[in-house]
Amino acid sequence: MGFVREVAVTTTEREQVIDLTPDIQAIVTELGIKDGFVCVYVPHTSAAVSIHREVDVADRPKLGEMLERINPDLATPHYTKAALVAPTEVLIVKDGRLVMDPDQRVYFYEFDGPKRRRVLVYVTD
Amino acid sequence: MGFVREVAVTTTEREQVIDLTPDIQAIVTELGIKDGFVCVYVPHTSAAVSIHREVDVADRPKLGEMLERINPDLATPHYTKAALVAPTEVLIVKDGRLVMDPDQRVYFYEFDGPKRRRVLVYVTD
Amino acid sequence: MGFVREVAVTTTEREQVIDLTPDIQAIVTELGIKDGFVCVYVPHTSAAVSIHREVDVADRPKLGEMLERINPDLATPHYTKAALVAPTEVLIVKDGRLVMDPDQRVYFYEFDGPKRRRVLVYVTD
Repeated sequence: MGFVREVAVTTTEREQVIDLTPDIQAIVTELGIKDGFVCVYVPHTSAAVSIHREVDVADRPKLGEMLERINPDLATPHYTKAALVAPTEVLIVKDGRLVMDPDQRVYFYEFDGPKRRRVLVYVTD
Repeated sequence: MGFVREVAVTTTEREQVIDLTPDIQAIVTELGIKDGFVCVYVPHTSAAVSIHREVDVADRPKLGEMLERINPDLATPHYTKAALVAPTEVLIVKDGRLVMDPDQRVYFYEFDGPKRRRVLVYVTD
Repeated sequence: MGFVREVAVTTTEREQVIDLTPDIQAIVTELGIKDGFVCVYVPHTSAAVSIHREVDVADRPKLGEMLERINPDLATPHYTKAALVAPTEVLIVKDGRLVMDPDQRVYFYEFDGPKRRRVLVYVTD
């Protein structure tokens, strides 16, 4: 069966990137999972999730700028951006820890904030 | 182990978007899964799957137009489009229902139809 | 719980595409899994994984060229490319085999080689 948990996210800007990594690791730790699998799902049509290099550095990934450049929809850009980034991610747990590069983070992408958002997290038992 | 099921899809256009959501929910309901995880896999090189806002509305996501604009391959555009959209998606089940935004749908993307296609669906037990 | 295995990858070029399909099938075969689910995770910020048509053919997908064309970051392009391609993939196993199109492959994408890389593979029990 596995476990389904929920993370509440409140965004304050129209477009915003929020680090979900600590919340997901906290769920894995609380459940006491040693080796397993995690699925992250964003049940919103104008938000998404992506795993990549941290954004608080000079040579950060420019995913937002790329989306801005290629998006053909100037009227309602948020739905197309959310579709391309996608609402799902998956991760692997080993010895109780998410296996990631030290510089990787799981980011919630808000494209139509500010809003109250939910993130669903499935973890294997 | 989990369960592996198959959905048959017949496309009638060169490019076409088909809503798989009812088929996937039907599999979850038939299996009687309460809480769990679903993986959708498209075993084709010129088709894909994506979860986003419904397409039957004026402010629909413009994923197709974006792909058309950025694709460098005018000769065989279908393989590159399928690679970018990707052949996989994952979903979470809670209380027997796919957890989604009311406006989210799981869409099969045909890029080289008309063709008979298969969609594989894995559901946890 | 499932199983977590690791594949070592050594890249020799700045940008390189390496077929991981035989390694992943070998893990599934060694574990003796009949029906199940596989998650592939790349714990690096300048590498990624993608499933698409084989690249050793004339009409191969042009994912690399697409990324080159749309990437706004000329200084550190590798992080943005890795973010868009994404570090995760999922697959389905049926009767002991990865269910894929005969022309589909799971590809490791190196964007900042040459480097020693790891790929994590989770398989359900």
